[in-house]
Amino acid sequence: SRSINLAVIPGDGIGQEVVAEGLKVLSAVLPQDVKLETKEYDFGARRYHATGETLTDADLDALKQHDAILLGAIGDPSVPSGVLERGFLLKLRFAFDHHVNLRPSKLLPGVATPLAGEPQIDFVVVREGTEGPYTGNGGTIRKGTEHEVATEVSVNTAYGVERVVRDAFARAQARPRKKLALIHKNNVLTFAGHLWTNIFNKVAEEFPEVTTEYMHVDAATIYLVTQPERFDVIVTDNLFGDIVTDLAAAVSGGIGVAASGNINPSGEFPSMFEPVHGSAPDIAGQGKADPSATVLSVALLLRHLGHEAEADRIDAAVAADLAERTGKPARSTSEIGDALAVRVAG
Amino acid sequence: SRSINLAVIPGDGIGQEVVAEGLKVLSAVLPQDVKLETKEYDFGARRYHATGETLTDADLDALKQHDAILLGAIGDPSVPSGVLERGFLLKLRFAFDHHVNLRPSKLLPGVATPLAGEPQIDFVVVREGTEGPYTGNGGTIRKGTEHEVATEVSVNTAYGVERVVRDAFARAQARPRKKLALIHKNNVLTFAGHLWTNIFNKVAEEFPEVTTEYMHVDAATIYLVTQPERFDVIVTDNLFGDIVTDLAAAVSGGIGVAASGNINPSGEFPSMFEPVHGSAPDIAGQGKADPSATVLSVALLLRHLGHEAEADRIDAAVAADLAERTGKPARSTSEIGDALAVRVAG
Ligand SMILES: CC(C)[C@H](C(=O)O)[C@@H](O)C(=O)O
Ligand SMILES: CC(C)[C@H](C(=O)O)[C@@H](O)C(=O)O
Repeated sequence: SRSINLAVIPGDGIGQEVVAEGLKVLSAVLPQDVKLETKEYDFGARRYHATGETLTDADLDALKQHDAILLGAIGDPSVPSGVLERGFLLKLRFAFDHHVNLRPSKLLPGVATPLAGEPQIDFVVVREGTEGPYTGNGGTIRKGTEHEVATEVSVNTAYGVERVVRDAFARAQARPRKKLALIHKNNVLTFAGHLWTNIFNKVAEEFPEVTTEYMHVDAATIYLVTQPERFDVIVTDNLFGDIVTDLAAAVSGGIGVAASGNINPSGEFPSMFEPVHGSAPDIAGQGKADPSATVLSVALLLRHLGHEAEADRIDAAVAADLAERTGKPARSTSEIGDALAVRVAG
Repeated sequence: SRSINLAVIPGDGIGQEVVAEGLKVLSAVLPQDVKLETKEYDFGARRYHATGETLTDADLDALKQHDAILLGAIGDPSVPSGVLERGFLLKLRFAFDHHVNLRPSKLLPGVATPLAGEPQIDFVVVREGTEGPYTGNGGTIRKGTEHEVATEVSVNTAYGVERVVRDAFARAQARPRKKLALIHKNNVLTFAGHLWTNIFNKVAEEFPEVTTEYMHVDAATIYLVTQPERFDVIVTDNLFGDIVTDLAAAVSGGIGVAASGNINPSGEFPSMFEPVHGSAPDIAGQGKADPSATVLSVALLLRHLGHEAEADRIDAAVAADLAERTGKPARSTSEIGDALAVRVAG
């Protein structure tokens, strides 16, 4: 489309700084005839402290009007653990049915990895985003006593599993290696595990060109550090996806370059794009944050909206920038943003 | 005690081979006046195929008579996923209340790690063994239809969490660095997360010398590959423990050297010791399996039964054997066992 109506949520900590650079690069990469409109929203710790609100129905109605959402980071030590996560981040993923949580991992030339040797890493994790242990089902009885019992219920539906598995197969089919791994723990979590495994095997029949494998989540963490080149596309549950994508980010250059998309493929609701790193309060406000993960999230956003060429230019710019860093003095957040803006425009 | 009455469960695949070496080293290390009695049990895939049984009440009664259990591995591709895990391994852990699942990770000199540099790794994970998502609570409705719903319920009790947290604090207190990290996901799994966090903070008051930290499981996977030296003792839930201990094993020399104990600290039931690796059917029967993880599990077993000096001798023998491997031709399972038996006797 020739216009983008973007909701911008800088959020907390370094979120403010990295989103500014994301927008800088976005403006620089877009052709003149694509009209970019942005509206900033003040979600996060400040709003919560001021009003007690995290994300109201009116907020959701407003966000719905946008083509997509760019988010920096939400979370601050001044807010009790879980309040902003459940009250904002997860509420938004669930309200907008962001069932495809897309997290690419690619080790770019010149980027340091904690792994020995020169591993070839280029895979994408399709993490389910609206089910599993993230539903908030569960509860507590006799809270604070020696007889307290707390439960967490992982909810898995054929509907929810099939749509994300199908999405992952389609992505695998479109990639040169055409490989898809299902990660679960079906030998212990047998109810959910059988549902995932059966649907995975059923959908596999529709994609005969895709090579599949199954692995337990514990074994997957081993492969991610010993044979990361083994992976092409991974599909997995919400919680396992949370865990393996942080590990995947760590081995493929760190969360400084890990981008993500919370996608509603039907387009019924706007999709949201955000760096995987959090608000990093320890370095906030110092211009030290690397905006690359946010800029790469902008590329995912553009690709989602059909601006393939611009997305490719951003990916190339970030890759080129990273490749030239070794031995150079550290740059500030905005200096990196400026450099990327120049590259994508050029 | 001056006698050890041991239940031996070789099990499936390489379990047979590695347990033979574990027993060889155990016999070699024990002083003349300690009487070792062993009784072998035939659990695993063969028994299941022959009788349909995995672990009967009579089996449990028989196992109860022993001082400890040494297990090789249980699991075979010929048995549907979950049958032996739920029917034997987890059934035994739950029946014998093995709530402390102890998994040390130490990168020994001369041992290869997938991590770059020369990381210093020496920590122990105390994984809860009788609660969390492992309870088998949950179920399936409308199985096999497009309306299937499958749930898994993580059950967490103050009783269960407090005892394992207390055990972990005591272990941290006894180590030179006196550090304990709680790993959970309390920003999303808020019911269980708050229970764990509150109890952790409460028990911490009794151990003022122990330095504590909390980290989310996703962040923990990053630290395990970027700063593994950060860890001393880790306490965590059953499922998170399953995941982080495989990753921990991978970075500290691989599952070929990862030992574990499923411990009932009260001694009401015998504790069980097993290598973390599984039955590895692909290399079974070929004499290729490394028995070191089993031998190190025998050391954990001896330490549990109060034979500290013998446990130390085994640890030293394995360390010395590993340190001398580089550049030498590969040895068979029994050759490694022979070498270790010579070392511990000497
Ligand atoms: C902050 C938290 C709710 C979130 C998650 O667990 O999904 C984060 O870890 C992520 O991976 O996006
Ligand atoms: C085989 C399986 C039941 C087991 C577990 O999940 O606990 C294994 O992975 C382990 O870590 O001992």
